[in-house]
Amino acid sequence: MTTVTGKRELLDLVSFDANGLVAAIAQQHDTGEVLMLAWMNRAALEETLATGRVCYFSRSRGKLWRKGETSGQVQHLKELRVDCDGDAVLVLVDQTGVACHTGRRSCFYRAARQGGVETILDVETDPEKLYGSRD
Amino acid sequence: MTTVTGKRELLDLVSFDANGLVAAIAQQHDTGEVLMLAWMNRAALEETLATGRVCYFSRSRGKLWRKGETSGQVQHLKELRVDCDGDAVLVLVDQTGVACHTGRRSCFYRAARQGGVETILDVETDPEKLYGSRD
Repeated sequence: MTTVTGKRELLDLVSFDANGLVAAIAQQHDTGEVLMLAWMNRAALEETLATGRVCYFSRSRGKLWRKGETSGQVQHLKELRVDCDGDAVLVLVDQTGVACHTGRRSCFYRAARQGGVETILDVETDPEKLYGSRD
Repeated sequence: MTTVTGKRELLDLVSFDANGLVAAIAQQHDTGEVLMLAWMNRAALEETLATGRVCYFSRSRGKLWRKGETSGQVQHLKELRVDCDGDAVLVLVDQTGVACHTGRRSCFYRAARQGGVETILDVETDPEKLYGSRD
């Protein structure tokens, strides 16, 4: 099915929360790997759609977070989807290098196991080379 | 790398927010399809890990939401991962039927396009058969 809904924009379908944010899941477009969960405000979402480079809103820093601006680990936008109730977006990206500030490809590198937690992803890039920040 | 971190439990790595919730991304374990984003409180996470059936916390209903309890569209847990800062979990599941209350496989069925929004997933199950609820 390929219904284009008139002039309705994706932004009109997003329900920003009381803090003006929407949850954003980043997924590598070709492998399907879920890379990270972050947040976007309206400005971040607009910038992402306009530039094709993924921009989040950093809740800790209280400002736009242009992913990879300092670390070089940028995310090129491939497709942006919104969920049924508009409170989450799925950002299909091409991730340069690693998504996680720990130097791992994905932030989801720890898995529940019987009796403990297993680290399932190796560090690929020295975190100090990423300037020690999440980005 | 397969480091088992002693007796540290996954639950100890989760940072629940001010409302006692953590974001939970459900992903089909074999295809990589991102199905939905929902929320878990500690009880939902404990129940999910204990039973192998995914349980969320419904923010609108203010109670545990045993996915598929009424609709039959259950999620069998395959693996549960936590992200680097503990504020999101990735739930790898085997989804019975459809995840979305609209009768689509995934809640992320609308994509941004030049000049509009495209519906990219078909309805697979009559939503009325799912009792019209999200579950």
